[in-house]
Amino acid sequence: MTVEGPVVVLRLGHRPARDKRVTTHVCLTARAFGAAKAIVSTRDAGVERSVRGVVARFGGDFAVETGVPWRRVLSAWPGAVVHLTMYGEPIDAVLPRISRGPVLVVVGAEKVPGEVFGRADFNVAVGNQPHSEVAALAVFLDRFLGGEGLRRSFHGPMEIVPSPRGKVVKKSL
Amino acid sequence: MTVEGPVVVLRLGHRPARDKRVTTHVCLTARAFGAAKAIVSTRDAGVERSVRGVVARFGGDFAVETGVPWRRVLSAWPGAVVHLTMYGEPIDAVLPRISRGPVLVVVGAEKVPGEVFGRADFNVAVGNQPHSEVAALAVFLDRFLGGEGLRRSFHGPMEIVPSPRGKVVKKSL
Repeated sequence: MTVEGPVVVLRLGHRPARDKRVTTHVCLTARAFGAAKAIVSTRDAGVERSVRGVVARFGGDFAVETGVPWRRVLSAWPGAVVHLTMYGEPIDAVLPRISRGPVLVVVGAEKVPGEVFGRADFNVAVGNQPHSEVAALAVFLDRFLGGEGLRRSFHGPMEIVPSPRGKVVKKSL
Repeated sequence: MTVEGPVVVLRLGHRPARDKRVTTHVCLTARAFGAAKAIVSTRDAGVERSVRGVVARFGGDFAVETGVPWRRVLSAWPGAVVHLTMYGEPIDAVLPRISRGPVLVVVGAEKVPGEVFGRADFNVAVGNQPHSEVAALAVFLDRFLGGEGLRRSFHGPMEIVPSPRGKVVKKSL
């Protein structure tokens, strides 16, 4: 279930006043489930700070960038573009057709421009029901990478030691 | 991958001013991925309205209840209690040990009382990294139900017709 190129997540339509927490969840989910980078089309220093804070404490080399126009990201992308939308084709059917090279995973906020549906190589529905772009992204990455994303080590200055009962954290700050 | 009892999601520590959107995502994710009900420990009429609106339009018999003290929910629960936390044991290791009867899946907001770690039959980490309770819930349900949750039909007055390119909605309102 390896991929040959990076998996990058593009978050569209972020409105800083309203979406700060959900977009932060999108970025942290991208990191935890195996993506190399998240790009947010609207500038938001608060989201960057939160995500970089987690990377500084918990490790890995995940990158986050905000304020990058989405058309530019799409037109520069060298691999497959996968747009997660409840209107798309069922993930069960589409997953085997997605190439294992670089993949750009696009997740929107409320309204996604029609242009994105046209530009995507795959419009993928993680269920054809309204729920959450965070949930859709997590399940897509979990299935696309065969659970590999979750099994990596991040080797950060803070490391959680799995425990059946309590909170065990190893700190080397 | 069938379960013999219902899967219910309990959302702890919801703060209406701050968590409305994330808690709504938790409830809608519960519905889309196969749970029968979501219980939110703090009262929030806005969350109830949003979730019931989706059920009315998109179908199914998913229930939502807010303002139910979490200790009461835990002590009345007849089956396994699974608490999703980044401090827990890896999902890969725990999943096979969870019984297929009724399951209560507990997801917290910021701080979860230590009592919950003690009361849970399983403290399960969907990755030992900070990310999102929405992501954790989605991936837990997806794996626990073997993808079955996503394959159900909801038969609502609005139905999305999967499409490779556009938005196709069948309305029988």
